[in-house]
Amino acid sequence: MRDAFHEDLDAIDQSLVEMSELAANAMLRATKAILEADLALAEEVISEDERIDSLHHDLDNRILTLMARQQPVAGDLRTLVASIRMSSDIERMGDLAHHIAKLARMRFPACAIPPELVFIIQEMGSVAQEIVKKTTGIINSRDTKAAIELEKDDDAMDKLHRKLFEILLDDKWPHGIETAIDMTLIGRYYERYADHAVSVARRVYFLVTGSYASDQL
Amino acid sequence: MRDAFHEDLDAIDQSLVEMSELAANAMLRATKAILEADLALAEEVISEDERIDSLHHDLDNRILTLMARQQPVAGDLRTLVASIRMSSDIERMGDLAHHIAKLARMRFPACAIPPELVFIIQEMGSVAQEIVKKTTGIINSRDTKAAIELEKDDDAMDKLHRKLFEILLDDKWPHGIETAIDMTLIGRYYERYADHAVSVARRVYFLVTGSYASDQL
Repeated sequence: MRDAFHEDLDAIDQSLVEMSELAANAMLRATKAILEADLALAEEVISEDERIDSLHHDLDNRILTLMARQQPVAGDLRTLVASIRMSSDIERMGDLAHHIAKLARMRFPACAIPPELVFIIQEMGSVAQEIVKKTTGIINSRDTKAAIELEKDDDAMDKLHRKLFEILLDDKWPHGIETAIDMTLIGRYYERYADHAVSVARRVYFLVTGSYASDQL
Repeated sequence: MRDAFHEDLDAIDQSLVEMSELAANAMLRATKAILEADLALAEEVISEDERIDSLHHDLDNRILTLMARQQPVAGDLRTLVASIRMSSDIERMGDLAHHIAKLARMRFPACAIPPELVFIIQEMGSVAQEIVKKTTGIINSRDTKAAIELEKDDDAMDKLHRKLFEILLDDKWPHGIETAIDMTLIGRYYERYADHAVSVARRVYFLVTGSYASDQL
């Protein structure tokens, strides 16, 4: 049996998992919205971002209350401080999905993504899903093997990001400056989303093992 | 006389001030480096980013130790948690200056900024300095009046950011896609830098007054 304090810690992990699932779902739908110029879906992602923000806010308050009431030391204190940081990272992931949805809305009824780049944005979207699903799993089950895989998935995202720039910089790029600006920002949002997800997984890995996931490659 | 614990809290504020001054200086020099294609200066900013990272790391450890030893409650606990967040924001500001310096280095010996945009990047650089100096002052002296001014300075940055896009999107834009991509990223870095500085100031404002600076406009 876990004592009440450790049940509270478990509940914090469950809230982080829930936030991470929402951030995964937001990015899944933002990607679909921007690829298919789906305004209704974009609006959904935009309005639901408040839910992640409010979970983030509530969770921070619960963590502060727990710190004040329980006066945790050593490992438990580190876990709580890491949870505050993870909650910020995940909240930011929600913001980045929200930015992509807003771009889809801004360009509607046109599609923000030109045909030549559909493939790469689909790929960035699926790598983002792989990463955030592993991150959610890592929060939930402390699966440190997945944390090591994540470093490689993040390399895959960086490669896609560079590939995107190569296409934009090709002499034959026919879509003009506005689309290039949009694509630069969208690429950056996916890359930052992956960075924050990896950062969450690294914090869990460090709490479990006391060493850094990137050292295990 | 302040007791030892409150002296430790003061020392944490002083470290945040020091980090904020370093982040201000990094952005001042990154702006000069990118405007003047000054490779030596860019290299300096790039290598000195480690100093901010290591101050951030040390400060976080000191805060955790203080939490574990002193078991602070209520206001003091909130102050320490807010300090952890401010330290992250300022560390990120250093990263953003570092990104600008890296772009200056990547384009050297060419200048990354085309002549038509020198003015706007100078402006973004000076608004960034005004904002970060107020932020440093707010950490140091808890000057809440400056925190309210900061909301307006942040609007000025957003206006410059929109103005930058207008120029890029002008039909007569003669500099091609690569420069448009660079300028999109640079604009984003200044905007995010200002956001993080404002976020630090808002946290102090909230700790001092219990209300939000944005509500006082």
